[in-house]
Amino acid sequence: MGNLKRYTWFFETTTPVEGHMHAVLRTIHAEETKFQQMEIMETASYGKCLILDGRIQSSESDEFIYHEGLVHPGMLCHPKPERAMVIGGGEGATLREILRYRTVRRALMVDIDDAVVEWCRRLLPEMHRGAFDDPRTELRHEDARAYLEQTDERFDLIVIDLTEPLEEGPACLLFTKEFYELIRDRLTPQGVMTMQAGMTKVNELDFFSAVNRTLTEVFPVVAPFQNFVSAFGTPWGFILASKGEDPRTLAPEEVDRRIRERVTGELLYWDSQTHRHAFSLPRFIRRALERQDRVITDEHPLSIH
Amino acid sequence: MGNLKRYTWFFETTTPVEGHMHAVLRTIHAEETKFQQMEIMETASYGKCLILDGRIQSSESDEFIYHEGLVHPGMLCHPKPERAMVIGGGEGATLREILRYRTVRRALMVDIDDAVVEWCRRLLPEMHRGAFDDPRTELRHEDARAYLEQTDERFDLIVIDLTEPLEEGPACLLFTKEFYELIRDRLTPQGVMTMQAGMTKVNELDFFSAVNRTLTEVFPVVAPFQNFVSAFGTPWGFILASKGEDPRTLAPEEVDRRIRERVTGELLYWDSQTHRHAFSLPRFIRRALERQDRVITDEHPLSIH
Amino acid sequence: MGNLKRYTWFFETTTPVEGHMHAVLRTIHAEETKFQQMEIMETASYGKCLILDGRIQSSESDEFIYHEGLVHPGMLCHPKPERAMVIGGGEGATLREILRYRTVRRALMVDIDDAVVEWCRRLLPEMHRGAFDDPRTELRHEDARAYLEQTDERFDLIVIDLTEPLEEGPACLLFTKEFYELIRDRLTPQGVMTMQAGMTKVNELDFFSAVNRTLTEVFPVVAPFQNFVSAFGTPWGFILASKGEDPRTLAPEEVDRRIRERVTGELLYWDSQTHRHAFSLPRFIRRALERQDRVITDEHPLSIH
Amino acid sequence: MGNLKRYTWFFETTTPVEGHMHAVLRTIHAEETKFQQMEIMETASYGKCLILDGRIQSSESDEFIYHEGLVHPGMLCHPKPERAMVIGGGEGATLREILRYRTVRRALMVDIDDAVVEWCRRLLPEMHRGAFDDPRTELRHEDARAYLEQTDERFDLIVIDLTEPLEEGPACLLFTKEFYELIRDRLTPQGVMTMQAGMTKVNELDFFSAVNRTLTEVFPVVAPFQNFVSAFGTPWGFILASKGEDPRTLAPEEVDRRIRERVTGELLYWDSQTHRHAFSLPRFIRRALERQDRVITDEHPLSIH
Repeated sequence: MGNLKRYTWFFETTTPVEGHMHAVLRTIHAEETKFQQMEIMETASYGKCLILDGRIQSSESDEFIYHEGLVHPGMLCHPKPERAMVIGGGEGATLREILRYRTVRRALMVDIDDAVVEWCRRLLPEMHRGAFDDPRTELRHEDARAYLEQTDERFDLIVIDLTEPLEEGPACLLFTKEFYELIRDRLTPQGVMTMQAGMTKVNELDFFSAVNRTLTEVFPVVAPFQNFVSAFGTPWGFILASKGEDPRTLAPEEVDRRIRERVTGELLYWDSQTHRHAFSLPRFIRRALERQDRVITDEHPLSIH
Repeated sequence: MGNLKRYTWFFETTTPVEGHMHAVLRTIHAEETKFQQMEIMETASYGKCLILDGRIQSSESDEFIYHEGLVHPGMLCHPKPERAMVIGGGEGATLREILRYRTVRRALMVDIDDAVVEWCRRLLPEMHRGAFDDPRTELRHEDARAYLEQTDERFDLIVIDLTEPLEEGPACLLFTKEFYELIRDRLTPQGVMTMQAGMTKVNELDFFSAVNRTLTEVFPVVAPFQNFVSAFGTPWGFILASKGEDPRTLAPEEVDRRIRERVTGELLYWDSQTHRHAFSLPRFIRRALERQDRVITDEHPLSIH
Repeated sequence: MGNLKRYTWFFETTTPVEGHMHAVLRTIHAEETKFQQMEIMETASYGKCLILDGRIQSSESDEFIYHEGLVHPGMLCHPKPERAMVIGGGEGATLREILRYRTVRRALMVDIDDAVVEWCRRLLPEMHRGAFDDPRTELRHEDARAYLEQTDERFDLIVIDLTEPLEEGPACLLFTKEFYELIRDRLTPQGVMTMQAGMTKVNELDFFSAVNRTLTEVFPVVAPFQNFVSAFGTPWGFILASKGEDPRTLAPEEVDRRIRERVTGELLYWDSQTHRHAFSLPRFIRRALERQDRVITDEHPLSIH
Repeated sequence: MGNLKRYTWFFETTTPVEGHMHAVLRTIHAEETKFQQMEIMETASYGKCLILDGRIQSSESDEFIYHEGLVHPGMLCHPKPERAMVIGGGEGATLREILRYRTVRRALMVDIDDAVVEWCRRLLPEMHRGAFDDPRTELRHEDARAYLEQTDERFDLIVIDLTEPLEEGPACLLFTKEFYELIRDRLTPQGVMTMQAGMTKVNELDFFSAVNRTLTEVFPVVAPFQNFVSAFGTPWGFILASKGEDPRTLAPEEVDRRIRERVTGELLYWDSQTHRHAFSLPRFIRRALERQDRVITDEHPLSIH
């Protein structure tokens, strides 16, 4: 596009007093679904982006950081992951990373918003890369908590790929002790859960630390970590909770060996050194985690501004 | 300030198509100095900020990340740092972190812009905390390269705390092979240099990787690392170059032991785990570093957009 | 300031989906008074500006349009204005224009917000130009409606220089039929009232037309008019209501003759041709006025978004 | 759309230190044509908008102000307009207003940018309303000055509907004394020209006044006027230049009579009172016009920032 000037900008307010802005080339699709406001835009900074309720979920340029960083720590921490479930995960890229594992025989994705999934499937092939058409995939559009309550199935990995809850809406019930207990009970004995868990910016650690604290009530191993997804404009928190192995005790050679043996294709983001980077948290973040005593429950859920 | 709405915003364009914005409470001081445009603002997001040529240099809320992350890796990597030099470093916080070392007997700061230093000294006491008045401090306002060329002094640590050069201005000559050779020659045999080296955002690694490549021509040990300074809205690259020890081979216990023995007061950001976090670079960054073959010279300097 | 780039901008949202933005040189003063949020800024576009609750009230560069356009139509429409009252009018420039009339013997200004008036007096001498020190001036800080209810005084001109009411706050009661009846009763037999009455932008004529409709219930002559104040980014509505003369029947020569005879100094904005410009409303505005049947009362007040 | 929040905004900088912003619902089309950057957007504030080189040309909500205000003063000022020419006029709405006159037998539109015209024709039917399909219309895509130089045709009305020239590009030659002489020579003896002539904001009158001054060198009657097009965020200057009648001497009844007799359908903006409003210029604008002595020539053309 040469030296064209940009006139249209997308503003994402990360907090009420701070924001991040992107020059927009075009709005590809915009729609208010039954559950949220969705926009698919092409930005000059990061290519195509999926935006839900005004927050960038993923971008063509750096979704590899987010999705590799969300999926692989969990998959690598299980002895032989065969059955995986994704809660949320609209664009299909979380599914895509799971399907790269040779051991995987079944990948179930439950995302309540069929409109988001359908538009991503049609307009963001760069992200799902055919994951929805893999014979191992099952896609359902319903409430994940209700689904989990009634199923008899057990999973080796469950990935929670949801936006943080705004105000006290229904999504709040997917970030509580009771929900995490349900997750734990639907995991196999060595089962692992991973999730995105809000920003880890200085002074904005309440959400991340409360989710972490809540998980320690439920799982024997809780390993918080960070990935920096450039398009978000802030470092991002993730948490791995495990009934078996602790990822922080994996030797670097073992991380690289498991990637080599289990994963098809090449990873761009995750390897043993990224593993060490992500699971080593700066001192002020560890302190905020230690000090947090808030446990999130169905009765006292948590939302972000 | 309660639920006051904000009407005034500061925009920082990190690239021509991306930016970061902060709600402004007030402009404390604004001035065009002989060298640059300076603003000292109070933001709602990060408290008082120093802004040079439209780019946030440091904020009250998270300058501890930037300044601890810039100084301590170098100081901890030297057997007994006694003489230190800061090039640039306007707010005095880099100086402040150096002066926390009991072994330090002399700290020279050479910042060409006396107006910036004077206003920071007057208006940002939270940042320098008296560092300019420490008897070990010497403050000079002149061109650092010219100064180094004529001095006989040798330093254990030199910290380059400069903004990246805009276009092909004079600051370009502080980011070249020839300048780094001068630095190396003014270091003691075990001497260490640290510097900030531009953003490490995906697709924006040219500056960081070229400086890193250039340093490998000059120093036996070059250790690139990252710190995430929230107010910058992007992860930030730093480089340590050493004539002696390699920080990446320091055992965690040794990092913590040296901090305990050498530093007065408590660090908020740096410790052994932060050390590991910072020096473990994600795969795509390491690759960009490996692929870079550009060496920056006086004849072919580099600038950012 | 040459070709300095600007990094700080003031945003005024004229509606929730439209706004106007100004490059800011510096915030001179910002304060939350008992009644409103006040900011005095120096903008690159219009010099010093007074901003209340995020809306520009007046700017150094074009306040002559607003204040001449608010005061002179009323003063010129009275046979011999001697006693004038300003309701609101913080910066003192409305007062200043009134005091230019040789016939004026008394000018009372009642502005409830003493903090706004004091800061304007100190920091905006370009606007009041000594009006507060004129021996004919009396300045009071109290509720204008309560004051008018108890006074025995009668005025030849009353100027209402208030911001439009936000939500259903107390200012709503200064834009109702009952308040306008009180104004009418405190005017001398040939008395005139003028006021600013909100924007006259296409599709945003509800406030202007409802105030106009309400005044027709109270005054025999109601003459709506417009001035374009550049810094507002939209044409602005004003209304003159009279117990005597109708300004629209004044011959151009008579307008110019009265200015010549009555006013000291030279007017920059108002004269016979501006008079004709302002009182001749475009067809779509006249239609919106004709169609409006809303009468604003104490019981059913009106506010803007 | 209810209370959806807006995340995407279009920024138009009216000067380097001032701007106007609109919430964007969607970008309908964006393209860099051979001549300019074009965007067709749907804004929340004004519906569909045509944007060229970052400047709003017209909006669904208030294009009636711009196009009626550009065409009717000229058409009403000619005894019997039969042949009209539009220079520029991409959206087809200028053509549309001309074709409302029963006397018009031929309407030639010469707009160099066929891509803009084609996209407007397809995507903005609300604006052209079939004007391109009227049998009286001829549409050509070529340089208007070159076309006029070689044609033998004479026109009763020529409307120049161009954006102001940016820097010293080719459009500069459509705003010079030599070009206006060519226009004059291609007009019939009572012929009239109208044009848009830049903003009339305080302190930004250089372009408007220089074009006006230049026209006085060429035409016996030059009548500058103003229309406020809300979406532009500033009052806008227009100029009528005539070889016959002076619009300012038309009696109001005559304006309304001619509209009644000549125009099909109903005008929303223009009538006798709007005529008086538009041609009565505020004092500070008349002064700026009087003081201007710059004549724009091919050798010394003019551009805006």
